[in-house]
Amino acid sequence: MEHLIIMAGGVGSRFWPMSTPERPKQFIDVLGTGNTLLQDTVYRFGHIVRDENIWVVTSRHYYDLVKKQLPFLDNNHILLEPCRRNTAPCIAYATWKIKKYDPEASLIIAPADHNMTDVEEFRRVIQEGVKFVKTNKGILTLGITPSHPETGYGYIQSGKALEEEKICKVKAFKEKPDYATASVYLREGGYYWNSGIFLVKACTMEQALRQNLPEMAKLFDNLDSVFYTAAEQEAIDRSFPSCPNISIDYAVMEHADNMYVYPASFGWSDLGTWGALYEQAEKDAAGNALVAGNVKMLESTGCIVHAPAGKKMIVQGLQDYIIAEENGVLLICRKADEQRIKEFSELF
Amino acid sequence: MEHLIIMAGGVGSRFWPMSTPERPKQFIDVLGTGNTLLQDTVYRFGHIVRDENIWVVTSRHYYDLVKKQLPFLDNNHILLEPCRRNTAPCIAYATWKIKKYDPEASLIIAPADHNMTDVEEFRRVIQEGVKFVKTNKGILTLGITPSHPETGYGYIQSGKALEEEKICKVKAFKEKPDYATASVYLREGGYYWNSGIFLVKACTMEQALRQNLPEMAKLFDNLDSVFYTAAEQEAIDRSFPSCPNISIDYAVMEHADNMYVYPASFGWSDLGTWGALYEQAEKDAAGNALVAGNVKMLESTGCIVHAPAGKKMIVQGLQDYIIAEENGVLLICRKADEQRIKEFSELF
Repeated sequence: MEHLIIMAGGVGSRFWPMSTPERPKQFIDVLGTGNTLLQDTVYRFGHIVRDENIWVVTSRHYYDLVKKQLPFLDNNHILLEPCRRNTAPCIAYATWKIKKYDPEASLIIAPADHNMTDVEEFRRVIQEGVKFVKTNKGILTLGITPSHPETGYGYIQSGKALEEEKICKVKAFKEKPDYATASVYLREGGYYWNSGIFLVKACTMEQALRQNLPEMAKLFDNLDSVFYTAAEQEAIDRSFPSCPNISIDYAVMEHADNMYVYPASFGWSDLGTWGALYEQAEKDAAGNALVAGNVKMLESTGCIVHAPAGKKMIVQGLQDYIIAEENGVLLICRKADEQRIKEFSELF
Repeated sequence: MEHLIIMAGGVGSRFWPMSTPERPKQFIDVLGTGNTLLQDTVYRFGHIVRDENIWVVTSRHYYDLVKKQLPFLDNNHILLEPCRRNTAPCIAYATWKIKKYDPEASLIIAPADHNMTDVEEFRRVIQEGVKFVKTNKGILTLGITPSHPETGYGYIQSGKALEEEKICKVKAFKEKPDYATASVYLREGGYYWNSGIFLVKACTMEQALRQNLPEMAKLFDNLDSVFYTAAEQEAIDRSFPSCPNISIDYAVMEHADNMYVYPASFGWSDLGTWGALYEQAEKDAAGNALVAGNVKMLESTGCIVHAPAGKKMIVQGLQDYIIAEENGVLLICRKADEQRIKEFSELF
């Protein structure tokens, strides 16, 4: 069966004050679609994954938000981390829990806060990918054909092509490059943005984690008897902090020899910056992206405005600014200076 | 005795959204002094006018605001207009009420929403002025020595000087001039900004109103018996709407032959525009005027920011903007475009 594991533990600090530790970006309707990013992530898999096969891994602080936004989720499917330990322990927890009853499960592992503009193509790619991992003992990453030399993403270099030249072996993972290097990647071709979305069978994932993080694997082996019982949360709260703080890329993918990449284009964005959010959001005729609020723009272009529902704002004479209000905090800053938002947020 | 009549019925529409019809500018601490403009107006007359000789004329909608901000005021000293009728009826109401028991009273008549930076000099001028009107049957206006060819104020042209050349006869009142005309005024000299503050004995004011607006005078004569009784408000509510909608300048001063002007300089401003407010407010090293709120300015200059108490704002990379929030409405606009604020306020 296909299972969807949604990683929803991020804190979204780059989107302050819209996104706060109390309510990070994945729990907000940042694109003004009427759904939060988490909800959109789930809905995107409609008819591909059954509701009872959806799993959300998040911080224990966000239980109420998940429960409210995805009320159909059984408590057993909301995996609550007592502390942040990056993606490897997060994926291990879900994998161990699922493999207890379905080691042959096809796992689709995806962040909760990404966006795809071409959902039909995304669904086609996922379905092709599931077919692939069902019959191959590999980890299939989705690589995005780059449109520009982006320095904010990691890249996947493809190797030999399989399957009528769509899916390729991975030759190498590349860290976020500088602009010159990214330009070389684009010129040479065969490099794809690492979307952070991947597909793998539960038993394959288990094996890879066991091989690369044997102590962590043992930790989850010891929890096997408490999964799906009333004792699970307490046991996780006790054991999980011992997990290494390490990403799945660094812990597994960069060393594994069964890595594959599916080069695809479905209008993907990690919505990792206000700039990315601006690109993906609907814009008015003057190129302003207005998310919620009751906002009037005059002689303004290229702005992105986030306001609480119903909040009235008049913005006149601004070019390329971020205007964001939440929880009684207002930020006005140049879009070009968004990398300083963390610094701004620390001023209070 | 000296009596102070404060005209506090304005609606301050140019300062939206900071100032609203529910709470206009005179009831707000727009300069960040810790006092509202109404309070500062009263406190400025400390030891010149006794508390029991202070009168506030305002709209009946603002009774609670006046009562809260000036709790020492007896209800008989809060004169409530049932509708807006400009300054002549406002002044007539107060004059008739005061002259009932003290026709020889010296009246100091002042708007509630002006500012003076040199309070000591202002107090000296007021005291000199009171001396003058006690012994002269005239109306003494305070004329401000102009510092620049302002087109937002009316001007008073002085005539022959009296009293060791300080107080002069008024030769003419001039409407708000265009820039060229204002420049001529400055070059020629003998023209002063009309501050809207004037001094006059109650009986002199009564006589002038009786002569210029005889029907209105009769209306207030008829109310004489109800002043200071429980029936006063109901009678005013019934009669006041019949008053002509006319300013004291137009109704009396421009025709009277007993007009005097005291040329003075005490850092006066009518705070009539955001620009004027900006000039009078305290500014940080970068020239930003921050009124209330918890506001951090970065790489910003020449801005004026009004935020509700405690409201957190970060403003980065703005030059010469107005940022004002009140009652859940935020305005961001260029200072140079402030004359369009009324238009902006009508967008909702």
